[in-house]
Formats: sequence, structure tokens, C-alpha cells
Amino acid sequence: MTTRVIQRCRDLAAISDSDRSISRIYLSPAYLQGLQQTEEWMLQAGMETWIDAVGNVWGRYACKDPQAPTLILGSHLDTVPNAGMFDGILGVMVAIEAVDRLKEQAIELPFHIEVVGLGDEEGVRFDASMLGSRALIGKWEDELLELTDQNAKSLESALEACGLNPQDYASASRVNDNLLGFWEVHMEQGPVLEAEDIPISVVSAIAGARRFKVTIEGQAGHAGTVPMGLRQDALTAASEVVLMIEKTAQQNNNLLATVGHLKVFPSAVNVIPGWVEFTVDIRSDDDALRERVMNLIFHSSEAISMSRGVEIYWSEYHWAPAKQCAPRFRQIFEESIAQQKIHVRTLVSGAGHDAMTVAEITDIGMLFVRCRGGISHHPDEYVSAEDAEIAVNTLVLALEKLAES
Amino acid sequence: MTTRVIQRCRDLAAISDSDRSISRIYLSPAYLQGLQQTEEWMLQAGMETWIDAVGNVWGRYACKDPQAPTLILGSHLDTVPNAGMFDGILGVMVAIEAVDRLKEQAIELPFHIEVVGLGDEEGVRFDASMLGSRALIGKWEDELLELTDQNAKSLESALEACGLNPQDYASASRVNDNLLGFWEVHMEQGPVLEAEDIPISVVSAIAGARRFKVTIEGQAGHAGTVPMGLRQDALTAASEVVLMIEKTAQQNNNLLATVGHLKVFPSAVNVIPGWVEFTVDIRSDDDALRERVMNLIFHSSEAISMSRGVEIYWSEYHWAPAKQCAPRFRQIFEESIAQQKIHVRTLVSGAGHDAMTVAEITDIGMLFVRCRGGISHHPDEYVSAEDAEIAVNTLVLALEKLAES
Ligand SMILES: NC(=O)NCCC(=O)O
Ligand SMILES: NC(=O)NCCC(=O)O
Repeated sequence: MTTRVIQRCRDLAAISDSDRSISRIYLSPAYLQGLQQTEEWMLQAGMETWIDAVGNVWGRYACKDPQAPTLILGSHLDTVPNAGMFDGILGVMVAIEAVDRLKEQAIELPFHIEVVGLGDEEGVRFDASMLGSRALIGKWEDELLELTDQNAKSLESALEACGLNPQDYASASRVNDNLLGFWEVHMEQGPVLEAEDIPISVVSAIAGARRFKVTIEGQAGHAGTVPMGLRQDALTAASEVVLMIEKTAQQNNNLLATVGHLKVFPSAVNVIPGWVEFTVDIRSDDDALRERVMNLIFHSSEAISMSRGVEIYWSEYHWAPAKQCAPRFRQIFEESIAQQKIHVRTLVSGAGHDAMTVAEITDIGMLFVRCRGGISHHPDEYVSAEDAEIAVNTLVLALEKLAES
Repeated sequence: MTTRVIQRCRDLAAISDSDRSISRIYLSPAYLQGLQQTEEWMLQAGMETWIDAVGNVWGRYACKDPQAPTLILGSHLDTVPNAGMFDGILGVMVAIEAVDRLKEQAIELPFHIEVVGLGDEEGVRFDASMLGSRALIGKWEDELLELTDQNAKSLESALEACGLNPQDYASASRVNDNLLGFWEVHMEQGPVLEAEDIPISVVSAIAGARRFKVTIEGQAGHAGTVPMGLRQDALTAASEVVLMIEKTAQQNNNLLATVGHLKVFPSAVNVIPGWVEFTVDIRSDDDALRERVMNLIFHSSEAISMSRGVEIYWSEYHWAPAKQCAPRFRQIFEESIAQQKIHVRTLVSGAGHDAMTVAEITDIGMLFVRCRGGISHHPDEYVSAEDAEIAVNTLVLALEKLAES
């Protein structure tokens, strides 16, 4: 019953830190309850379960050979505040359902399967994202435990409050294990599959990203007294930069660029803006392309600065290279989709995902499930029962094909 | 001694509601003290003085003929918070100094002179500007008394706290008096005279203005998942409108257009802006031109809305027609300036001034004094003693010429 996937997403949505919206922030009471509920479902699917030192929940469906490698399936269980019910969670529920299917059909595999519900992907609480998958790849350090939330509660004490042993975070690492790979099913969070009427797609890569804070320093002035020709308006300069970035991105496939945050100072109806700050987020699965485009953007920004007599400062605060999905996993996914007579579509993931982190220690594979309106991080998130069923079927077929390969 | 004008501006600056900056908000303790100090200076210049029911201070320098008309000279005494020391105040001090000069030189005129220090021009306290000059033209109503400041104190009780009689506001009206006109000297608040190395200029008109709140409704989305071609980005649309407005204004002389305030929602680095609101302030001394340009802007905005698939809503919240300065006053000012061997320059006032209000009941004349860097509403406001001296001389010459005309 694949409607069970949707039902479980709904059941988890009801476990919330807030009465009025879906919210399961890492290590909150609702988060812990969601973890235990998920562990329960793993047990029902015949898995051996545990919660690791950083609050990830694991279920192991072992094969006969103790020496066999392990394929990890999963995604994250935490949510943003006022979330929808599928982002992250869908991937964990689909994975549990696939294992249930294997068990019911008594399918034996030459590798162990472990399903993981990761603790923190959204990074809402401690201003650091992907804490769950970072523990999995052995990238926690003592300093991380000192991170604090907005109530000045440290990560260390938040973990302790959940009955976990923070000092033991290294035990959550899977670096030294014999891993076959990590597969993540995730809702698309974008509008492409819906627009093309396709229920599922293979992901070829997770885009790398750079993020900048840009400040433009012009000259504030009186809106009634400074002639147009004598202005150094920081907002008209910013507008030119914003449009230049949009145009440059539009001229390059496989590239997204967004100015999401922008603030004007002093921001009064009759004062020419003297100062504007905004952010730039630029993503591509092609790192070299992204660097070339950034150089074009820097160059054009310089020209705008010169022609308008304003200062434009760029300061980078995030940089991550693209991560490719393993070709053999892509091929297996493509075959599994084609076998269901579904058009094989491949997408780049522009959004960051746990798989991006896990890619540092093992091969990754990803599947995207169609969602409605491209909406995510919002109560309106929607994935149909039919599409969730297709995701489970694809996963089961892919596991069988991997077993044969 | 014209350095006395600067000294008095400085003395008033020391009378402030704040220890750390210049601030004399309408009807505040510092405001009242500034009023009394100004009244004192008027008395010293030989004027008969009074404070009217709304907190304007008056000094009368009467001529021999009781039936003669009255010429009012003045500007405002209130300031914005964290102000400079010349905006408004300079015009009152120059007028008092001119009267002092008339008295010293025993110059007799065929009209009465009254100098007024107006109470509220800046509109900082009660979210209504030019309250001082609006009382002068008989435009107060009972409802006005119910306006409240941010401490919920009403205009009525603020007036009472200053020992004034709010119910008697009609007595501040000069509508039924035999007025010759209203002359206002003001710092330019713009960079033109400094750029052209000219100390003083005649004002031909005060620009009319329209103000709009514009909202753009696009579609918020994930910066990593929505392809450039499927976006309805409210900020890139707003940027296009901002640049269109700038360009349209640049293509028309005698017109200024400014987007001063702009806000983005939800304003996060990885979220495509779904909603932007901003203000537009457009000014010209040519009302017909301003309407034509606004129609062009509306038209272009419509085109941007169509091409980008976003909704753009314009809502007007302020409209004021241009006010022309009286040709005979302009001519007198021009002759007085030329007589000092100063290049005669004429400027439009883009900024609103008390004279704009007073123009509803009598002829107006305005002079602009050069300031440094076009800076106003800021502690860095600066007018030189030499330029203030020229302003006094020009006023005295102009009064003599008016007497002869
Ligand atoms: N999947 C997802 O929303 N990741 C984090 C946000 C981002 O990629 O900017
Ligand atoms: N003189 C002056 O600053 N007037 C009010 C502000 C405006 O014109 O917008």
C-alpha cells in the first residue's frame, strides 16, 4: 500500500512543535517524537534500529553475508518552521516502504540496506545545515558542540536533553564502513516535472553554489533637490546589477542566479538611497561555467560602478562545488523508470541535499518526485499518492537491478 | 554684522531636545525655548512680537500707515531629528537681520513687515507637515487637533502643554488680512549653486509632487529549483521599473523621480522574491509635463507587468500642484542680485516649502542660499557667513525695490 507513504508523511506532520503549523526543528520535542515514530515504522518493516549519537535514526535490513557492503537509503526528518509535510520526510518514508516491499516479497539482496532519517538538514536551529549528514561523514568537531540556538542553548546541551551522548558524535560516522552508496529520494521542490507531466526523474548532479553579500555605496540626497544628472543613487545602481545578473544567468543554461534579499538605506520616500545591500546566490552543476559567469558578473558590476560613480563591494560567504551522481546509479534509475513506461527525464538538483554531503565518502544517487507548483518549505507542499507509489516502485526495481549488476 | 545670522543659527542649534544632536520637534520643550529666543531677537530688532495659537512666533515692524498692506518674511523653526542648523532657521534669522538693518539705517517702507518663525514644516511629530503655514492660511479644522504623536499625545494637548489655546487656532489665520506677499529665504538643500559657484538664486516655482506606493506581486520560489525561464521574480521586475523611472526622468528636464523606499519579501538569500513594495516620488514645476511623464511611466509599468507575468499595483497617496513665484517678486530679486554683481541664477525648488502653502492666499517669492554638498536634514548642513551676508543684503535691497515699485 503506497498510500501508506502519504499517510505516514501526514502522521509525522501531526507531530509538530506548533499547534498551528508543521514544525519539527532538530532536537525539539516534536523532532524526538518523530524520530521514535519513524523507528517504530522501521521495526515494522523488519529492520534492526538505533538512534545514533547526533539524533539520526537508523534501520538495518541485513543480507546474509556479514561482509557485504551497505547501501544507505534516506533523507532528513527535520523541517523548517511552518513547513510542508514532504520535504525530506518523503524520502525516508519511501525508503522504509521499499524495504517493507522487499521483506514481503522475500527479496534477497547481496548487500545490506540501511535506511536513515537524518536529524538536521535545514539548519534552522544552529545556523549550520546538514548536521545529520555531516556526522555521518565524520565531519563533526568539538567546536560544533558549542553552537547555540536563539535561546543560547548549545548543541551539546540540546543533544543531552534528548538523552543522547554528544561526546560520542564520532560513533555516528560511517567513514570506515564498507559502503556501496547513498540513495536519496526527494520531492523536486521545483516546477519542471509538473510542467512536463512526468512523475519522477533521475538527478544527474547537485549544483554547486556561491553566495555573496553585495553592498553598494552611493550618495544619499534630497529627492526634490538633487538633479537626476548629479545623483549617485545606490538603488538604481543596484537595480542595474540585479537585472545584469538575471540576464547573465538567462544567457547560460545550467545556471541559476538569484537576488533574494535586498535592503535600502535610509529608505524614505523623499530620500535618494545612499546605500543598498543585497545577496546573490548562484548555482550550477558545472563549476567551471559558474566561475566563468561569476567573472562576467564581477566585470559588469565593475562597469556599473564606474559609470554610476558608486562603490560596489562583493563579499563571498559560501562556496560549495557541484557533486555528480554516480553514473552507474543514474543508469540503474533510468532503466527502472523506463521499465515502468515513464519518460526518462534527468534533472540537476539546484537545491542542496544531504546526498551532497554524503558524496564526500561514497557514491550517491538521487531521484526527484514531482510536486505541485514547485512549492516547498510551505504548508502547500504536495506530492500525490500515485507519484509516491511510483517512487517506491522505482526504488524496489533499482535495488533489484543493483543486486544483479 | 551678518555673522550674527550664523551665530544665531548656532545658538538655536544648542537649544535641542537631545544632548547629542540638533532636534527641535514641533511643540517640544526645546521648540518652545527656541521660539522664545527668536521672539527675543525680534524684540531686539525693534519688532512688536507675539506667539499665535498654533505656536508660530511673529514680529511686526510696522510702517506709518496703519492701512498699508503687510509683507511677511520667514520660514520654519522646527527641525527633523538629528538635524542640521540651517534648514528653515536660516530664513527666519536672515529676515530678522534684514529688519534690524532697516531699523539701523532708519529705512521707511510703505508697507508693514512681519517676520514669522513657523512652528511645524517638517511634519515629524504628527504625521502632517506644514501645520504652521496651514494655520496661517486658515486651513486648520477641529479634526486636526485629534492628530496624535507616537506617544499618543494629541496635537490639542501638545498645544495646551505649551500654554497655547488650541481652540483659538482660527486666530492664527491671515486670510482676511491685507497681505502684500510672503518671502522665504531657504538653504538650497541641493548641489547646484555650489557646483556653479553662485551664492544665491531666485526661485521660479516650487515643484508639484505626486507620491505613489507600488507593489509588485510575483511568485516566491526556491532559488535552486525554479529555472530562470519559469520565474516571476518580483525583485527583477521592480528593478526594471526602477530603471525605467530613472530613464524616463532623465529624458525630461524639469523633472525628478525617485524610488526612495523599497522592501522585498520574504527577503532570504535562497528564496526568489515573491513580493516587492516601493515608493515613487515625482516632482516638476510643470504640472502638465509631470502628468505626461506619469502616463508614460504607467504605460511602461504595464508593459513590464505583461512581459514578466507579475502584477504591478500603483496607489497614489500624495498630490500637490506646482506653485509659481510671483513674477514681480522674481524680478525684484533678480535686480537685487545683479546689483551685487552676482550672476543671476534661477532655480526651481524641488523641495516643498512653507511658501508653497502660503501661495494659496498671497503672492510668494523665494531665495535659495548656497549650501555645502547639497546636504540637508543632517548635522553636516553648512551655509557660509559670506553667503548669509549676501542673503541679508539681497533681502534689504529687494525690500527697498519693492518700496519703490
Ligand atoms: N533542499 C533544500 O531546500 N535545501 C536547502 C536550501 C538550498 O538549497 O538553498
Ligand atoms: N524642504 C524640505 O525638505 N521639504 C520637505 C521634504 C520634501 O520636499 O520632500
